[in-house]
Amino acid sequence: MASPPTNPHYPHSPHYPIDETHDPTLESWVESANDPGTDFPIQNLPLCHFLRKEHRKHATDNGLGVPIGDLMVQIGPLAEARLFDGIDGGNGIPLGEDLWMPEGLLLASKKAHRGFRHRLSELLRSDNSELQSNKRLLEVAVMPLKDVRFTVPALTPRDYTDFYASLYHATSVGSMFRPDNPLLPNYKHVPIGYHGRASSIVASGTQVRRPVGQQAPAQDGGNPTFGPCKMLDYELEVGVVVGRGNTLGDTIPIGEAEAHMLGLCLVNDWSARDLQKWEYQPLGPFLAKSFATTVSPYIVTMEALAPFRVPAFQRDAGDPSPLPYLTSEANSAAGGFDITLEVFLTSEQMRQKKMEPVRISRGNFKDMYWTLAQMLTHHASNGCNMQPGDLLASGTVSGKTRDSRGCLLELTWNGDAFASPPKLVPGTDRTPIILPTGEERKFLADGDEVILKGYCQREGFRRIGFGECRGIITPARTIERPALP
Amino acid sequence: MASPPTNPHYPHSPHYPIDETHDPTLESWVESANDPGTDFPIQNLPLCHFLRKEHRKHATDNGLGVPIGDLMVQIGPLAEARLFDGIDGGNGIPLGEDLWMPEGLLLASKKAHRGFRHRLSELLRSDNSELQSNKRLLEVAVMPLKDVRFTVPALTPRDYTDFYASLYHATSVGSMFRPDNPLLPNYKHVPIGYHGRASSIVASGTQVRRPVGQQAPAQDGGNPTFGPCKMLDYELEVGVVVGRGNTLGDTIPIGEAEAHMLGLCLVNDWSARDLQKWEYQPLGPFLAKSFATTVSPYIVTMEALAPFRVPAFQRDAGDPSPLPYLTSEANSAAGGFDITLEVFLTSEQMRQKKMEPVRISRGNFKDMYWTLAQMLTHHASNGCNMQPGDLLASGTVSGKTRDSRGCLLELTWNGDAFASPPKLVPGTDRTPIILPTGEERKFLADGDEVILKGYCQREGFRRIGFGECRGIITPARTIERPALP
Repeated sequence: MASPPTNPHYPHSPHYPIDETHDPTLESWVESANDPGTDFPIQNLPLCHFLRKEHRKHATDNGLGVPIGDLMVQIGPLAEARLFDGIDGGNGIPLGEDLWMPEGLLLASKKAHRGFRHRLSELLRSDNSELQSNKRLLEVAVMPLKDVRFTVPALTPRDYTDFYASLYHATSVGSMFRPDNPLLPNYKHVPIGYHGRASSIVASGTQVRRPVGQQAPAQDGGNPTFGPCKMLDYELEVGVVVGRGNTLGDTIPIGEAEAHMLGLCLVNDWSARDLQKWEYQPLGPFLAKSFATTVSPYIVTMEALAPFRVPAFQRDAGDPSPLPYLTSEANSAAGGFDITLEVFLTSEQMRQKKMEPVRISRGNFKDMYWTLAQMLTHHASNGCNMQPGDLLASGTVSGKTRDSRGCLLELTWNGDAFASPPKLVPGTDRTPIILPTGEERKFLADGDEVILKGYCQREGFRRIGFGECRGIITPARTIERPALP
Repeated sequence: MASPPTNPHYPHSPHYPIDETHDPTLESWVESANDPGTDFPIQNLPLCHFLRKEHRKHATDNGLGVPIGDLMVQIGPLAEARLFDGIDGGNGIPLGEDLWMPEGLLLASKKAHRGFRHRLSELLRSDNSELQSNKRLLEVAVMPLKDVRFTVPALTPRDYTDFYASLYHATSVGSMFRPDNPLLPNYKHVPIGYHGRASSIVASGTQVRRPVGQQAPAQDGGNPTFGPCKMLDYELEVGVVVGRGNTLGDTIPIGEAEAHMLGLCLVNDWSARDLQKWEYQPLGPFLAKSFATTVSPYIVTMEALAPFRVPAFQRDAGDPSPLPYLTSEANSAAGGFDITLEVFLTSEQMRQKKMEPVRISRGNFKDMYWTLAQMLTHHASNGCNMQPGDLLASGTVSGKTRDSRGCLLELTWNGDAFASPPKLVPGTDRTPIILPTGEERKFLADGDEVILKGYCQREGFRRIGFGECRGIITPARTIERPALP
């Protein structure tokens, strides 16, 4: 294995070249897309599955959409108007015939994804009139972003896997759960992950009910208690949506891993820490996570992210090299992503007082110990079949500094997470976050809304955003529901 | 909580009464169904999704089937001939309109399931001529069992959960993986489970490729190795298929749990023990399991199992009672199932010599520490939504005696799994199984076929069977596949 470049020059990924669609001087006829602050300039073009707030004639009311500036473009009507003709979707099937739903892009080849992006970029460019001057089509297919909502994720995964790829997160959580043994010997060799619950993945904006569950006995040998979670937390994560999969029994070599990725989204892996601490051994987190996982509405494509690729995490000199099946020059040189990630919070009181959400942390996805390509390759290394639309989340994105910790468990922990030996256990000696109302938070309260945001920024390129991943906590349910007939 | 009956009298479950369809004197006009040795007497009537080996006219070639004796009955054509008219499927929709696929029964009410069973039992009874004398329908809908095959499970789960409900299994595996700490303090309070991989669930008969993966370093601090699994194992389990689900945020009270169950099947949770030992901390088994899970073709319905209900596991006097949400009189009295479970093995050499499969263990599902109702109720206790068709597996079914251990890890372990303190670690001091060819097995070899069987037997009732759950091991893949275009 070649060592990572010592003077990283942000090389692009071999699969996803930087091309004219990334040109920062490109402007759109959608004026708001040219605003430097927008998440959705013409250089972004992420995918979503939207629903119109109001029913209209002449169009299906939900389906594949692409936001641009403060507008949403529905792709189906454009495809029906033959604006995407001539793009080969792979296997000789024209891409244009199946663009009403995001699923239509899943099995397409990478060449088709590039073709789709180029054509859509062209249609939205200020010097192109094909769509801009087609009044009927504009009326059918283009609408204000504020007139749409999201009730399901962009793609509905059959399987959802959650990794644990931040060394900083693993070390600090390990310090709390296993003070004598914070970082296990496998961590630097194995991209640790577990299967998550797919059924409880919800779209951004869905309310999240506080779970009830078992909590550890007050003393060893006592009985556990059962009731509403007292240590409700969020986890700031990035998810990758799988495009084409692999056949059961086959593997995905590291050099091919990125060819299987459609794009990235934000993931909030809500966590009930008290349930987790009691249940997680020996088979891992279960009910502490399965009550809800929120994903952002937009899939930012691998094509859009090309300018923001960075070298994989620089391991310490004493760290082992990854095994050969997890190693490639391209992965070392550009396996990472420079994505700034932020967590905002509003309490019910803050909303009543019309206060803005307050930012409680900011980290960067380039700080992950394992790359997404390593996670995907590892996942399929035993022959496990990835399927189109599967979601792989990164695990909590935490950095080295306190303000870059991606969950409350780490953030409100009084003391240095990396002190050795670590001395603290969860629930004790916590340093609360103070909200602008004076309210204190060690964990989430009912009515709290957590908002994840992400964006890429780099000299010489337009800023592109991930939109928001929102969820508000509602009180635990206490009444049992009626029996089935 | 009332204590379990001290003199258990095999009471039936409140949800699933014993009725005339269980009458052992009932005979079918399908002669082979009256053979006492058949898995499929008229008292069974399990559900499957079969495929005809040969294409025929006048019928779809796959779909919902019910085996009886040595025949398969396709339900779709019977429903089309209006033989299931008049059964209310729930919500006012007649059941009979959607019986081409097993999914048609998923959302039906329990009353509809009973109605379906009663009607099918009637149609197959020796004194009924409706189907028996309808030559055209017999030709279309009834075929020899030997002319069908199974390429997918009876129902394809979106989510698959695997529990760990045998105290004996948990104790002996715990002794090997954590000699100092075999049974964790949560075990007797929490029905421990983890999310499994749904995409790699395969139908009985599907070949299983030996996985490759990371194995622990030879000594602490060394580098792990990567290669074909050397400790490939099966796990004998029982699965429950969820019928109607619950809404996200709602729970399933213990008294309602069985109303959400469609029926049971056999599950082989193939396990790569060397991968498992290295990867499983702290987030649980992952690649050690996700390469394949084999399920038997038939779902034996909850209705058919009514006569074989037994009290829940009798906990030791010193054991804690389950928390109230996991407790009900009905569960204590009849939450268990008396199902004899067997594991057979043939090696390639045995097949070449035309030797019969050899039985290597026999256990009983009544030995599980937790009932299926407790597992389902626990799973949904945090508001996690169960969905129709979801599969919950029990974990390895192991009994107290050596010959009832449900996996090779336990079975070939030299010594008493319940000795205290346990001294042995996996891979050392194993006592191989000796096959009739003289071959030795500590773990599975390439070419080995594992066959799980299950049946219920009780004085005064017909024996009913689960059919077989088969899988043959093929060698690990070493060649990387070509790149995606």
